[in-house]
Amino acid sequence: MQTEMSTTGRTASGHTSLIAADRVEGTSVYNRAGESLGSIDEIMIDKLSGKVAYAVMSFGGFLGMGERHHPLPWGVLKYDTELGGYVVDLDKETLRNAPSYAKDESFDFEQRAAAQKLHDYYRIPPYWI
Amino acid sequence: MQTEMSTTGRTASGHTSLIAADRVEGTSVYNRAGESLGSIDEIMIDKLSGKVAYAVMSFGGFLGMGERHHPLPWGVLKYDTELGGYVVDLDKETLRNAPSYAKDESFDFEQRAAAQKLHDYYRIPPYWI
Repeated sequence: MQTEMSTTGRTASGHTSLIAADRVEGTSVYNRAGESLGSIDEIMIDKLSGKVAYAVMSFGGFLGMGERHHPLPWGVLKYDTELGGYVVDLDKETLRNAPSYAKDESFDFEQRAAAQKLHDYYRIPPYWI
Repeated sequence: MQTEMSTTGRTASGHTSLIAADRVEGTSVYNRAGESLGSIDEIMIDKLSGKVAYAVMSFGGFLGMGERHHPLPWGVLKYDTELGGYVVDLDKETLRNAPSYAKDESFDFEQRAAAQKLHDYYRIPPYWI
């Protein structure tokens, strides 16, 4: 069960903060206004560091450009217990201009330059540091 | 595609080392002798740090005690390109005595004391540090 957490890595009830990757996938994503943007498709793990590198979200028609997949650094996602999903504190324009790919395309996660650009965009330290 | 990696976080071909959580699940696990032990069931993520906390492996009859689920710290798994799966450098006795639970039981991932014991067992620093 996902519960609100303190900065110490424990929830108020003394619990840790683990979740199965399978349960993250499919979880809804909202903007700050509580509007549903889409849901999480896929979790990308960095094998070396054991860190989650990206959560890939698919946004439906919301951005008015067909279904797009947005790889987001993990730190962009904040879990909201009331909504029962993740909130991204990004406006529509920021999301529209973010690195993304269409349903029939693929993102080259393996290219460090593209990954650096993506992390710069969201101003989140890269997973490999 | 999983390829051999250097310690810099890049593969020999300059690639990073990402894999989809979905692809880790189902991957075979071997011992050092190359014997198949079972496969990975589930990836547990620490929401706060964004780290993989555990890979839960199910071992079939190998240990002679019915199917058991073994949560392993991520650092215990080494990917072997030749075998196309993970190798755990642990002998049968170590695995048999490791924290595990039966198919119809559940592991309380939320209890810090149990988690600490598990990490101590494998001598791997806990994910929350």
